[in-house]
Parts: sequence; C-alpha cells; structure tokens
Amino acid sequence: MSVQQNDFSKWYIDTIQKADLMDYTPVRGCIAFKPDGYELWERIQAEMDRRFKETGHRNAYFPMLIPESFFQKEKDHIEGFSPELPWVTEAAGEQLEERLALRPTSETMIGHLYSDWIKSYRDLPVLINQWANVFRWEKKTLPFIRTSEFLWQEGHTAHVDEEDARKETMQMLQVYKEVVEDLLAIPVYDGQKTPSERFAGAVDTYSIEAMMKDGKAVQAGTSHYLGTKFAEAFDIKYLNKENKHVHVHTTSWGTSTRLIGAMIMVHGDEQGLVLPPKMAPTQVVLIPVGPWKKKPEIVENLDKVFAELKAKGIRVKLDDSDQSPGYKFNEWELKGVPVRVELGPRDLENGQALMKARDAEEKTAVALDDLVASIENELTVMQTRLYDKAVAFREENSHTHVDTLDELKAHIESSQTEGKIPGWILGGWCGEDACEENVKEETKFTTRNIPFNPPTEKKTCVNCGKEAKHSVWFGRAY
Amino acid sequence: MSVQQNDFSKWYIDTIQKADLMDYTPVRGCIAFKPDGYELWERIQAEMDRRFKETGHRNAYFPMLIPESFFQKEKDHIEGFSPELPWVTEAAGEQLEERLALRPTSETMIGHLYSDWIKSYRDLPVLINQWANVFRWEKKTLPFIRTSEFLWQEGHTAHVDEEDARKETMQMLQVYKEVVEDLLAIPVYDGQKTPSERFAGAVDTYSIEAMMKDGKAVQAGTSHYLGTKFAEAFDIKYLNKENKHVHVHTTSWGTSTRLIGAMIMVHGDEQGLVLPPKMAPTQVVLIPVGPWKKKPEIVENLDKVFAELKAKGIRVKLDDSDQSPGYKFNEWELKGVPVRVELGPRDLENGQALMKARDAEEKTAVALDDLVASIENELTVMQTRLYDKAVAFREENSHTHVDTLDELKAHIESSQTEGKIPGWILGGWCGEDACEENVKEETKFTTRNIPFNPPTEKKTCVNCGKEAKHSVWFGRAY
Repeated sequence: MSVQQNDFSKWYIDTIQKADLMDYTPVRGCIAFKPDGYELWERIQAEMDRRFKETGHRNAYFPMLIPESFFQKEKDHIEGFSPELPWVTEAAGEQLEERLALRPTSETMIGHLYSDWIKSYRDLPVLINQWANVFRWEKKTLPFIRTSEFLWQEGHTAHVDEEDARKETMQMLQVYKEVVEDLLAIPVYDGQKTPSERFAGAVDTYSIEAMMKDGKAVQAGTSHYLGTKFAEAFDIKYLNKENKHVHVHTTSWGTSTRLIGAMIMVHGDEQGLVLPPKMAPTQVVLIPVGPWKKKPEIVENLDKVFAELKAKGIRVKLDDSDQSPGYKFNEWELKGVPVRVELGPRDLENGQALMKARDAEEKTAVALDDLVASIENELTVMQTRLYDKAVAFREENSHTHVDTLDELKAHIESSQTEGKIPGWILGGWCGEDACEENVKEETKFTTRNIPFNPPTEKKTCVNCGKEAKHSVWFGRAY
Repeated sequence: MSVQQNDFSKWYIDTIQKADLMDYTPVRGCIAFKPDGYELWERIQAEMDRRFKETGHRNAYFPMLIPESFFQKEKDHIEGFSPELPWVTEAAGEQLEERLALRPTSETMIGHLYSDWIKSYRDLPVLINQWANVFRWEKKTLPFIRTSEFLWQEGHTAHVDEEDARKETMQMLQVYKEVVEDLLAIPVYDGQKTPSERFAGAVDTYSIEAMMKDGKAVQAGTSHYLGTKFAEAFDIKYLNKENKHVHVHTTSWGTSTRLIGAMIMVHGDEQGLVLPPKMAPTQVVLIPVGPWKKKPEIVENLDKVFAELKAKGIRVKLDDSDQSPGYKFNEWELKGVPVRVELGPRDLENGQALMKARDAEEKTAVALDDLVASIENELTVMQTRLYDKAVAFREENSHTHVDTLDELKAHIESSQTEGKIPGWILGGWCGEDACEENVKEETKFTTRNIPFNPPTEKKTCVNCGKEAKHSVWFGRAY
C-alpha cells in the first residue's frame, strides 16, 4: 500500500513540505506561506476577485481588532466564536479598557459601520468584499486546511429585502462552485447546511463540499443568508420608498486558503503535487537530456519552444541546470508541473521531443513542428481530465445504498476490511438534531450538506427510521 | 483665505470624508477603507506588485503574531518598536505563556525563518515581498497618514554580500521613486536618512520624501540596508563557495496606505480630491445637461462616447441620474474625477460638447467627432500637468538661502507674517545628532533626508556653523 493510501496525513504533510509550499512557525497553528504556496493563493484571489467585480462587488478594508462589546450584540455569534478568539489586552505599555478580539470574521465590525453608511433605499444594495487575515485559535490544526491565522475573503452585503438577499446568497455560492470547479478542477456538491452546522448568527448557510482522496470532506466555501439578525443587533435600518424605517437583510460569504489544501488532497499523488494547469505557477518545464551539452542545437531548439510558449502566455521554465535528468524529473514532479518536455540528441535526430503530462503513465513522442500546439492542447485537456478523474473518484465513493445506522456501520467496517475509503453516504434525515448527533457519535460521519440535486431521494431517516425530510450527504470531515 | 490654506487639517479630513474614502471606527486610530478609498490602494498595489515581480521578487505570507522573545534578539529593533506594540495575552480562554505582538514589521519573524531556509550560496539571493496589515499604536493618528493599523508591503531580501544587498536597497528605492512619480504624480527627493531617523535595526535607511500643500513632508517610502545585524541576531548563515559559513546581508523596504493620504494632500484643492488620471477609479464622467430628457439624441450620443471610451480601456461613467447638473458637477468634482464632459441640446446643435479637466479653470468646446480623441489626450496631458504643478510647487517652497539657525527662524517667521508656508530648507549639517536635535527643538524642522542630488552644496552646519558634511533637507513632517 502506498504512503498516500496508508497514511494520508503523513503523505499530505510530506508533500507540501517537499514542494516548498509552507513552513511551520513557532506561533501555535500559524504557518508561513512560502512563495510557491502563496502563488497558488494569488491565482485563486485573481479569479475570485474578477468574478466578484463582474457581479458588482467592490473591495474595502475594515479594522482587524473588534471590541468585545460588539460580539455581545448577536448572541449566537458570540456563542459560536468566543471559544476560539485571541485577545489584545495591552497596547503601547497600557492595559486596554476593553479587550479587542482578533477578527474571526467581520460581521460585527461591518454591521456597526453599515448602520452609519446605510440611510435610504437608494444606498442599497451594499455589495462589499474584503481580502484579509483572520484568526480562529483552534485545538487541532493542519497546514492550509485549519490554521490559527488564515487568509480569506469575506463578502458582506446588505439588501432591501429577503428576496434580494437570498438571490445574492445563491449567486455567490454559484460563483464559488464555478471557480472551484473550473480553476481548481475540484467537483463540489452544493447544498444547504443543517441547522447545527450553520454559521454562528446565520438564518441559513449554504456550502460547497469537496471529497478528498482519503474520502474526507473539505467545506470549500460557504454563503450565508443572515436575515435581519445582524441588522437588528447593529441597528442597520433604511428609509424605504414608503418612508418607513426598516431593517436591511444581510448576507456574508467566504472562501479561504484552505482551498490550497483541498486542491492538493484532491489531485496529489504518490510522486507529489499534481497541479491543474490553470493553477500551476509553472505549467511547462523543458529539460534537455542525454549528452545535450555537446549539442548546442538542443538548447537552441528548446529556447525557441520556450519563446513561443511564453508569447502565448504559457508559464514555462527551461531547466538547463547541472543536475541529472532523473533528479530534475523528480523535482518538477513533486512540484506538480503539468507538462514536461524532454529533448535529447537522438530525439533531435528524429525531429521529435518527448512530452509527459504529470498525471499520465507514459511519455508521448511529438514531432518538433507540432510541439507547441501539442503542449497547448495538453494543458487544456489535462485541466478537464483532472476534473473528470476527481468526479469519477467522487462518484465511486458517494454511496446511496445505505438506509440505516447499522448499514452505515457495516459499510464503514467493510471499507476498512477491504482497505477502501468509506467515502460519503447519502442518508435520509428526519430533521432532528438528535439524529444527526447520534450518527456523528456512532460513526464520526457528520452532515456535509443537503444537496440541491441529490442523486436520489431517501425515504427514511438513517438514524431513527422515521420519514425523511431531506436527503443529506454524510461523511467524515476536516 | 481658503479652508485649504487656512486650516489644512480640517480641509484634509473634510475632503476624504466627503469623497467617501474612509470612515472612523470605535477602535482607536483604526479606520475603515471604504471602496472609493480602497480602490486607490488596489491601483498602487497592482503597479508596485508588477514592478516587484519584474525585478525578480515573489510574494509570501508570514504570521502576524510575533513572540516577544523574537523582538529581544535585536536590541535597536525592540527599543524602536516596543513603545508602539499591541499584545495578545490570551487566546481561546487561556493566558498565553509568552505574549505575542501584532507585527509592526516582520524582520524578526522572517529572520527566524530565513535562518532555516537559507543553507548555501545557491539559495541566494532570497527576494521576497509581503502584502499585509501592520500595527503601530501611536498617540497621534491621521487617516491614511498615520493609523494604528495600516496596510503595506514589506520586502525582505537576503544576499551573499554587502555589495549585492546595497544594490537591492537602491534598486527598490528607485522602484518606489518611479511608481510614486509616474503613477501618483508626486515628485520626491530621494536620499539617505540621518542616523537618528534610521529604521530601528538598520545600518542605513534611504527614503523618498514628498512635500504636501501645507509644506509638511510625508516620507513616502523607505529602503533599508540591514547589514548583518538581523543575520547575526537570528543566525542566518550560508555555506559560501569557499565552504565557509558566513552571515547573509539583508535588506527591507516598505510603502504603505499613507501614499493615499500623500496623493490627496499634494493634488487636492478647495473643491475636493484631484486624482491623477492613472489613479482615478473613474477617469471620465459624461453628464447630459439642459432639457436633455426631451432630446433622446443627447443620451444616445453620450452612450456612443461611453462605449468608445470603454473599448479603449478608459474608466468612464455616464451620470443620467435625476439630480441637477450643478449637483452632479459638485459631486464628481469632490471625488476628483479627472475629466468631465457636458452635452446639452444647444451643444448638440453645434456638433460639440464641453470638456473640463478637474484642475482647469475653464471648459473647452470640443467637436463631437474629436471628443474621444480629445478626452484620451487630456487624460495623458493632465497626468503630466499634475506632476509638473507639484514639481513647481515644491521648487517654490524648497529654499536654499538659509545658512544659520537664526536665518531659519527668520524664514519661518516671515512665512507666517506673509501667510505663506515655510516649506523645506536645504541646510548644511556637520553630522552631529545634537545639532539635528537642536534645530528640531527650536523650529520643529526635522531632517527629511540627505538628497542624492542636492540643488547646491551647503558649506556650514545650519546649527553650529562648523564645516558641513552633508546638505540636508529640513522641514516639518507628518
């Protein structure tokens, strides 16, 4: 059994360190994003930001420190977040009169300000996003996936009514789904969170959920309809067309650097990272092989290919360092570079080069004249192929045959016996928190979401056997 | 006398609030960057980031919280920053064993990590930049210019030797100068800081200094040669080609959101913001005037101009709201939109429109056929004109005739009597801290920098009259 199958956590940690994406730091649960890791975030940022602006949002920046009294104003919110807050209690040599929390999210600070900014229906909708660092001091941390400090974006919008706010909530969930599927090549189930899994202070929370190669789930993005809860807590009212002061309806939505972790866990393999071409900092690496130093035409040819690829906007590197080809192959494989091209004296004689996609078993011989076009084509094809493979993996491990808790236990047990991952199951759910809780206690499977398009409709609750109100994805989660 | 001349601070605060750039928050000295303000930062970021990458730098992200013990390692550093640090002392309901500072800058955390990352001369240079929020809990704050939390970039590089590190220090100062002059249209004096004004822990600090319309200085960017001070404190060594372990030489350099404040104080006028075209979120506003609603051709014509400008990548708005033209003119003026175009029924009959540059006295009639080209041209010309005006203003208020402290006092006094700003003076300086200190005490004029290209060489120290080692810009500063 491979390390990836045998000890997924070890594989993950080894992989991100070998690929030089991050480093641990002496501050508990806080990592340093090294340039190769940060560049992945920059690509996610660029595409998300483009989509946010396309849908009418603008960026702003709010203070990181939030007065304790702000949290007290929305009781679910403080209940949910207070166990994880770091506090500033002193500054410039003096005790502060009121403790200031390092923001875990900014609903309260923004709520306070929106109450000033919003006066009339003419001011609505307010469509603002923030790129920021946030803090959640959690016990168990895992690089990218769950860290004490992480980077994210948080959208905060205010609307005239429920309909408009709900439309926004759904629109942003859809933006997340498209970016995660198109850019990161990660298929996701979109759906609604159960009440127990809601964001602290939300009326409804929606999520996109992705399956990792160990069968565990990563919540890859959430979008919340907050109703008038924060508007009431922070007195955000506007004068409507009928000249009445009414509360706005707000939403919030977020995605974070955990997407980097999810991408690695979905596509990575025994040799290291596998990066979708749209995400890869380096998309193509050109490597001279054999006794290439004696034949200058080899590097000349690669230089030409390099220039042509570059002119097409493809991110390419030529590795003419002194290391052996084997060393280089290994190095670029663990960094997940999508396409490798080798050119040696014999290839040159034959007027061809060897091309290898990071996820392919074999190299392909390609005529030098077709090389640039073939590389370009391979990058497109590979992006789709990685997505399709991830879909196939997810389908294979999304089970719909489980109807009862006993069947779920049996499913998990037989998976273990057969050395398979248990994956997720679609289970009926009556709507009671207690049933959800019991499934969790007995199996560690939690509700991921109530998918908008379940593959089938379950009739009975997987825990109590009563009539099911919803069909829900259950699985273990990060 | 205008508000701007009479009470510059009031003018500044009024202007940024009316232009909707920021808001105060209940957290001392922390502001919220509203979308119109944040977009200015996004433009600065985009251009700086492009230049950093062009010069071989990559972005990374380091933890915001820094253990107290890290600060202790470089004595000048802790001395300089400790009076301004906010501290996290509790997290998740527990007292921390060691206090964690909110970073005022990241030399210490990065030094700690570089000591791990750098092993051999092959690893050098390390060229990393970080975009981040930082904290300096200062007593007197002013939006954008000096806030408890601000946004900035900090470059941190490591080199094999002094020569390479000094080259980097100068290169980045030059990048700053070019961006600030080209993009923000702010002329700056580049030069070296005196020892008393150095960054805490630097061997040498260089700066670019800009003159505001009230004659005060804003330090618009700094670049530091840190020698081996941080390398020694954090044990950052590498194996050189001679197989010896030697310390790296490091640099750091930063610019921040204070550039937004500087831009406003350099170009703004009585009517509000004046934005250089390259910086303006909206570069052109098209406004139908007169009884335009009765003549649909007017908006049709403006729609066409709008589409053509947009196709050229020009950021344009058409304001066909119900407000009066006067209201609209005022609104867009205070937001600093560079070019306004008016089109009314009579203009249309004459086949022309009226165009007004934000900083021009008069409107110009332009034939409709030439309108797009004229607008495009005006945006280019205005960018240069604003820069040239700022240069002229600075020249007028950069004085070289002052040779002694008495003359400086007389100069300040006569400025006051004549209702002029005192501006800056080029003073000789013997190199003694005490002389610098005395000038400051007596006049509030501090050393800005020792310019690389002083307009003239001063022979004697402005304070003690002994031989001058340097010609230094003195002025009041933010």
